[in-house]
Amino acid sequence: MERHFDRELNELREKLSSMASLVELMIDTAVKALIERNPELLGEIFNSETEVNKKHIEVDELCLKLIALRQPAGIDLRFITSAMKINAELERIGDQAVNISQNTANLVQQPFFVKLEIIPQMTEVAKSMVKDCIKAFINKDVELAKAILLKDNDLDQQKKDVFKKLISNIIENPAHTEYFIDLLLISRNLEKIGDHTTNISEDVIFMVLGQDIRHHHLFDNHKV
Amino acid sequence: MERHFDRELNELREKLSSMASLVELMIDTAVKALIERNPELLGEIFNSETEVNKKHIEVDELCLKLIALRQPAGIDLRFITSAMKINAELERIGDQAVNISQNTANLVQQPFFVKLEIIPQMTEVAKSMVKDCIKAFINKDVELAKAILLKDNDLDQQKKDVFKKLISNIIENPAHTEYFIDLLLISRNLEKIGDHTTNISEDVIFMVLGQDIRHHHLFDNHKV
Repeated sequence: MERHFDRELNELREKLSSMASLVELMIDTAVKALIERNPELLGEIFNSETEVNKKHIEVDELCLKLIALRQPAGIDLRFITSAMKINAELERIGDQAVNISQNTANLVQQPFFVKLEIIPQMTEVAKSMVKDCIKAFINKDVELAKAILLKDNDLDQQKKDVFKKLISNIIENPAHTEYFIDLLLISRNLEKIGDHTTNISEDVIFMVLGQDIRHHHLFDNHKV
Repeated sequence: MERHFDRELNELREKLSSMASLVELMIDTAVKALIERNPELLGEIFNSETEVNKKHIEVDELCLKLIALRQPAGIDLRFITSAMKINAELERIGDQAVNISQNTANLVQQPFFVKLEIIPQMTEVAKSMVKDCIKAFINKDVELAKAILLKDNDLDQQKKDVFKKLISNIIENPAHTEYFIDLLLISRNLEKIGDHTTNISEDVIFMVLGQDIRHHHLFDNHKV
């Protein structure tokens, strides 16, 4: 019985892990479409979204089944309810990648009006946060989860830098306002991806320690 | 035993209901601060946020306790896992109200450069969606939940109208770019609140019908 339950928990880990890889690919593809001015890549994101949505429902169903049939307690119960929350966060990371591709759709039709290296840099940070938070979940790694909370501060600062730069671009060149606002929204989408990974990290810490660190002063502003 | 469980489920309903009232008040206060140019109101929002965060943890703890002790199945289990998800959505609605107040902080220091009646209109729609989705949850009201999905289309359209108007304002008056972008972000915060209420509505439909309508074609673009 126990061994069967372990297999089911592994299945859950694998499903969430493959979902995380998929949303990471979506982020990558959306920003690649932007950088390479390649509208064809945008279609791939919508296909991936369908796949993510399918996995989202499967994971939720598996979690409900496990709670109902196995009646877990303690860390097993926290593992499964955390998986449900992480599932929702991953789906929303996918949504942010879709938002990036929507904000990119107009941009790819236009020449480059600004060289903005911070966007690919932010993308790398966001992708690494997605990868790490699932690793932290799988390995029950509290230290890695805490490191993600710190990384999020960098992403927030990068977004602030992008906003500042783009606002001065608009003031200098208001005819391209819409273009700059699309870029500004993309930087915000990337920042939001970071926020979802910090939610996942907090879920991991709660799962492992059985302590709710969300909203505690120690963790305010993610100063851990 | 059963009656005790019913009392616990009622406690859960009441906690979520009071959390919803609180986040609705936060939205109201943030937009009031904007409209009345009253920075003092912004402090109230941070106090409410502390209260919401406290309730957020309490509800999660209660849900875990109920699953572990009562080992619910069927609709009772779906009710409790839905409550956990709705809890997270309400907390995020509170975060959006905090974002509105942050985007308002600079605006209240400045005179009105634009008359934008759509923002208070969007606020009324968003607040009514928050109220209705919790009512749908409490009363297990699928029809009301579906009506919220439709209302979200209006909110999306209003946000598009705000974006269009503000972009032309920026082009005409680039010196006030930052001001207009703050307003644009506020309209986006309100739109996001609508998105959270549609997530809650989908949870309600799933809870009642035991059917996952998320990501189904019938519900694409919320055409129900």
